[in-house]
Amino acid sequence: MQTMFERLDAAAAKMKSFVCVGLDPTPARVPIDDILAFNCAIVDATKDVVSAFKPQFAFYEAMGVDGFKILEKTIQHIRKVAPDHVIIGDGKRGDISTTATAYATAMFEIWDVDVATIYAYQGSDSVEPFLQHPGKGVYIVCRTSNPSSRDIQDLVTEGPSGREKVFNRVAAMADRWARTENVGLVVGATYPDDLAALRAKHPEPHFLIPGVGAQGGVAEDARAGANEYGSGFLVSSSRGIIYASDKPEDFEYKARVAATVLRDQINDSLAPDVLDTQSVTIR
Amino acid sequence: MQTMFERLDAAAAKMKSFVCVGLDPTPARVPIDDILAFNCAIVDATKDVVSAFKPQFAFYEAMGVDGFKILEKTIQHIRKVAPDHVIIGDGKRGDISTTATAYATAMFEIWDVDVATIYAYQGSDSVEPFLQHPGKGVYIVCRTSNPSSRDIQDLVTEGPSGREKVFNRVAAMADRWARTENVGLVVGATYPDDLAALRAKHPEPHFLIPGVGAQGGVAEDARAGANEYGSGFLVSSSRGIIYASDKPEDFEYKARVAATVLRDQINDSLAPDVLDTQSVTIR
Repeated sequence: MQTMFERLDAAAAKMKSFVCVGLDPTPARVPIDDILAFNCAIVDATKDVVSAFKPQFAFYEAMGVDGFKILEKTIQHIRKVAPDHVIIGDGKRGDISTTATAYATAMFEIWDVDVATIYAYQGSDSVEPFLQHPGKGVYIVCRTSNPSSRDIQDLVTEGPSGREKVFNRVAAMADRWARTENVGLVVGATYPDDLAALRAKHPEPHFLIPGVGAQGGVAEDARAGANEYGSGFLVSSSRGIIYASDKPEDFEYKARVAATVLRDQINDSLAPDVLDTQSVTIR
Repeated sequence: MQTMFERLDAAAAKMKSFVCVGLDPTPARVPIDDILAFNCAIVDATKDVVSAFKPQFAFYEAMGVDGFKILEKTIQHIRKVAPDHVIIGDGKRGDISTTATAYATAMFEIWDVDVATIYAYQGSDSVEPFLQHPGKGVYIVCRTSNPSSRDIQDLVTEGPSGREKVFNRVAAMADRWARTENVGLVVGATYPDDLAALRAKHPEPHFLIPGVGAQGGVAEDARAGANEYGSGFLVSSSRGIIYASDKPEDFEYKARVAATVLRDQINDSLAPDVLDTQSVTIR
C-alpha cells in the first residue's frame, strides 16, 4: 500500500503541481447561493492545475448540520472527478485516548479524507491514534503562518540539541514516526527562514505550507519546503483562489487562473530538472 | 450581562455541585440503541447533582452528520430541562483569522454552547475571535491529564519570570484576558502539584479539571483547583459517570450514583464554610 507521502508526491508529479486548494466557503463571500455547487465548480475548474484539496472544517461547522452535508458531498464530488487527488481534512483536531480515536474515525472513515491536520500539544498520545489507519496520514501543526504564532511556538527551550524553539521540538517529536512515513508538518510560508531551517533539519516529513497569498507569503518562499528531490510539500491557498473573483459569471475562470499562476510560480522557483513544467491552457 | 465565570459559579452554587458530566457516547458502549435517548436519560438522571454538561464533539463527529443531529438535539434537551446548567463544547478547536471566527460561530451560535475548549498553540490570534461573543467563554487547553502531556507541555522555557514550563506560559498568556473574565484553563487532575501551582499563580481564571475517574485522578486532588472563595472550577468526568453501568435497566441510576459520589467527594474536600453541602436523595 502506498504511504500518504508517496500518494501526495505521486499526485503532485502527475499533475505537475504542488498546489492545494483550500475549500473554505463562507456564505457571505461565496458569489452564488448554493455552497455545494460553488465547491464543485471550484473543484472542476482547478482540478487540472492542482494536486490536492483541503476543506477547512470550521467553515462547514459554522453552517451546522447542513454544512457537514455539504462537506460530505464535496468530498464525494472530488473522489468522483479527481480520484487521484489528495484530500486534506483541515480540522486541527487534537485530543487523547478514545477521543483521539473518535476524531481519527471521523476524519478517515466518516469524511473520507486522506490526511488530517492535528495538534500535538498533548504529546504522542494525541498523534498515535491517527496512525492506526494504514495509507492515511497527518500533518502536525508546527510553525504557523500568523503573527502571534510567536506567543508559544517561539518560546526558547533547553533541549538535547541545545536551545530550541517550541516549534522545533514539535518537529523533533514528529520525527519519531518518520519511519512510518505518515506524519508531516504544517509550516507556514510567512516565516521562510524557519521553513528552510526545518527542512534542513528534517529531510523526511511532508510539509503542508499555508500562508501564501492572503496571509502575505510568496510562492517563491515556499520552495524552501521542498526536499532534496524537489518534492515533499504542498502549498495551500484558499481565499486567493476561491475568491479570486466575487462575480458569479467568472469565479471559476478566475479561480483557475489564480491556481495556475500559483502553480507556475512554485514550479518556476524549483530547479528546472526537478519538474518538467508545462503550461496548462487557461480556458 | 453575567460573565461566563459568574454563570459557572452561579450554577455550581445553585446545584451545590462542581461536577460536569462529559457526554461522550460511543455506540459500542452505550447500553441502549438510541444514542440521543441515552444522552437525554443521562442528563435527566444527573441534572440534580451536577452543574454542567460537556459534550465531547469527537464522539458526535465519529457518527457523521447524524451524530451532529444528536449533538444538536442533546443540547436542546439540556436547555429545556436544565436551563441554568452550563454547557461546555469540548472540541479543542484552534485556528486563526476567519477560520477561528467560523469555529466561534459554530460553537456559540450553531451548537449553542456556553464555553468552548480551545488550543492556544497559534497564540493570541487563536483566542481573540472567541472573545467576540459576550457572555460566552473559553477554556484554553493548558496542562492536560495524559501521560505524554509532558512531551511539549513540560518543556522548560526561559521566560520573564525565569525558567518556566510551556504550560505555565500558556497560562500566563491566558492572563492577558483575565480582566475580561472570559478565559479559563483546562488543567488535569492527574498532576495535582501542577494544578495547585497554577492556581496559586493564577487566582482569577476558571479551571476545567478533567482526569478524575477513568484517567486516574482522584476527586480530592481537584480541590487544589478551587480559588480563594472555594469555587472557580469544574471537575469533569465522562466514562466514570455515563458508563457506570453497561446495563439498559440501571445505567441511569448508576450514573446518578456516580455523579452524586463525585459531587460529595469534591464538596467534602472543600472547607466546610465554602459550601453547605446537602445530600441529595438517590432514587
